[in-house]
Amino acid sequence: MNYKIAVIPGDGIGPEIVGASTKVLDKIGEKFNHSFDYTEVLAGGVAIDACDTPLPQETIDICKASDAVLLGALGGPKWDNLPGDKRPEAGLLGIRKALGLYANLRPAILYEELKASCPLKPEIVGDELDLMVVRELTGGIYFGEKGQDGDNAAWDVMKYTRPEVLRIARKAFEIAMKRHKKVTNVDKANVLGVSRFWRSIVLEVAKDFPEVELNHLYVDNAAMQLVINPKQFDVIVTSNLFGDILSDEASMITGSIGMLPSASLSDGKFGMYEPIHGSAPDIAGQDIANPIATIISVAMMLRFSLDLTEEADLIEAAVKKTLSQGYRTADIYSEGMKKVGTVEMGQRIIENL
Amino acid sequence: MNYKIAVIPGDGIGPEIVGASTKVLDKIGEKFNHSFDYTEVLAGGVAIDACDTPLPQETIDICKASDAVLLGALGGPKWDNLPGDKRPEAGLLGIRKALGLYANLRPAILYEELKASCPLKPEIVGDELDLMVVRELTGGIYFGEKGQDGDNAAWDVMKYTRPEVLRIARKAFEIAMKRHKKVTNVDKANVLGVSRFWRSIVLEVAKDFPEVELNHLYVDNAAMQLVINPKQFDVIVTSNLFGDILSDEASMITGSIGMLPSASLSDGKFGMYEPIHGSAPDIAGQDIANPIATIISVAMMLRFSLDLTEEADLIEAAVKKTLSQGYRTADIYSEGMKKVGTVEMGQRIIENL
Ligand SMILES: CC(C)[C@H](C(=O)O)[C@@H](O)C(=O)O
Ligand SMILES: CC(C)[C@H](C(=O)O)[C@@H](O)C(=O)O
Repeated sequence: MNYKIAVIPGDGIGPEIVGASTKVLDKIGEKFNHSFDYTEVLAGGVAIDACDTPLPQETIDICKASDAVLLGALGGPKWDNLPGDKRPEAGLLGIRKALGLYANLRPAILYEELKASCPLKPEIVGDELDLMVVRELTGGIYFGEKGQDGDNAAWDVMKYTRPEVLRIARKAFEIAMKRHKKVTNVDKANVLGVSRFWRSIVLEVAKDFPEVELNHLYVDNAAMQLVINPKQFDVIVTSNLFGDILSDEASMITGSIGMLPSASLSDGKFGMYEPIHGSAPDIAGQDIANPIATIISVAMMLRFSLDLTEEADLIEAAVKKTLSQGYRTADIYSEGMKKVGTVEMGQRIIENL
Repeated sequence: MNYKIAVIPGDGIGPEIVGASTKVLDKIGEKFNHSFDYTEVLAGGVAIDACDTPLPQETIDICKASDAVLLGALGGPKWDNLPGDKRPEAGLLGIRKALGLYANLRPAILYEELKASCPLKPEIVGDELDLMVVRELTGGIYFGEKGQDGDNAAWDVMKYTRPEVLRIARKAFEIAMKRHKKVTNVDKANVLGVSRFWRSIVLEVAKDFPEVELNHLYVDNAAMQLVINPKQFDVIVTSNLFGDILSDEASMITGSIGMLPSASLSDGKFGMYEPIHGSAPDIAGQDIANPIATIISVAMMLRFSLDLTEEADLIEAAVKKTLSQGYRTADIYSEGMKKVGTVEMGQRIIENL
């Protein structure tokens, strides 16, 4: 089969980690007789520099004409002082919206091999930690009206519509059905009207999934529970802003942020895949970034957008094997391990495929 | 001297922890020749039951006529299904607004004696953890316009005005001047207009405090940093919603949530003091709740509203001594310690005054 992949290397370490990941994909292609056609497109800071916009129309068009999108990372201090709608982040939000990627799946997994770098005490994380944050990605305060009254005041509107909540809630329950059948809805229904509205629709959707256990937490409580009792969670479903905060917190408690992938899905099979971590401009171009989160994002892409389950499993197994052989990039290095750079980590994983 | 204290025991464990705390205050009065006149008033669930409103006007009037307010905790499942403006939480938000309590100070301190219950690894917390979240409390999305369009959509507006940001930023810098002279501003300026507005005013205020080091974190990053590197923080200043989330997370990483007080201040000396934890209805009336957070809130009251520094120091020293003698309520109990109830914990602390 022939698959069209739009590739957005982006800024900072983006080109390096994407480079390592497409090599892994090429090897999969060779082994399984698929061909992956990459089209590189611009977004974020590099697009601002080249085309004076963080999201050229061509990028949107090519992504839409592809089977899936692989993204490195966007942004950096160079572009931080531009006005809001001209920043790299505007490109990221723009592409999520333009491609209708309303469901952001962010698994937080503790890798056995990296337990040493987990900030929580062993008795809290136990043997395993595996939760999934399902974050609404194209609505809420990220895309609400904004306004400013000169120097006097400024505001953003946190709004959700019924169809927006229905589809993300459904997605969360569907995912829970394939996992441990537990959904935790996180909102701030004791204060926000939009949260009460959101919760009422989650309750409605829950009726179609009687096998799934549903509970509700206020966002402040959820931020606490992630630290003291993360094992209670299977699937967390929440709004764009709360999901931004909680998924970062969740990834951090695993101690594996350099390892965690994400998928942003629309209806149907189409999706965009990217590591959870950022563009890390301070270490860009030095062959030290950890490519594993991006490589596992490629595995997620094979699984969710291309239906290539066996291929996805193989990549994940190769990553684990490479870790168990002791290879580590600097961010996950601990004494006694073998320190490798971005390129070598990619090669070791390819050898283990 | 004679001090007027409005007391709001509230719901759940509220009456028990407040009861233990006013006894401590009485003892201080005896020792130092002050008299504290308490006026008990209703708010939250008990007010709903008695007066059909979570915040009777009389409560506001009496609080305003007092030197300070001591609050236990509000809310419980019994009132959770009431409409938004009739819930106990509406009483809490209402009283904050009515009394102009715009600055919420939430210290997160790791108690040496309770290190065992800290969820983070020892190498992360080190010997000490002592940070202060300064949360804006009477603005932002908590008090913005809300709206609903039938079954179709609902929204809340996150808005800040210039005077609102000016005064909370100033408060944070003033507090930092008395601590380690470092302020971390937390916002979401890469996405929200209101955050960019907020940040610009923080930068303006910073000019008046050249000795204070200022840095900025996006809220998602702050949620991560609290877990992996909490020692970087001295004072965190942030908006109402972000402060709600981050202060709970911060209190949890200390493992001392049953121990942490809070102060909500207006301009001048007036303030309301309450524990950070909630009303814990599941353990109410059983003499097992930990009164320490409320007792330390009383110490904060003496310090901030009544200028009784020596008295405040004495209470804090008595708490530490009681802990070092091995007395523990159930929530902070560990093997080898002496388990005591709410009343006895209060008495032990009084004996150590
Ligand atoms: C860069 C930023 C706009 C973005 C977000 O807030 O969504 C990032 O934090 C993320 O989570 O992907
Ligand atoms: C009970 C709730 C309304 C309140 C808040 O969100 O402010 C609480 O979480 C707090 O932090 O004091």
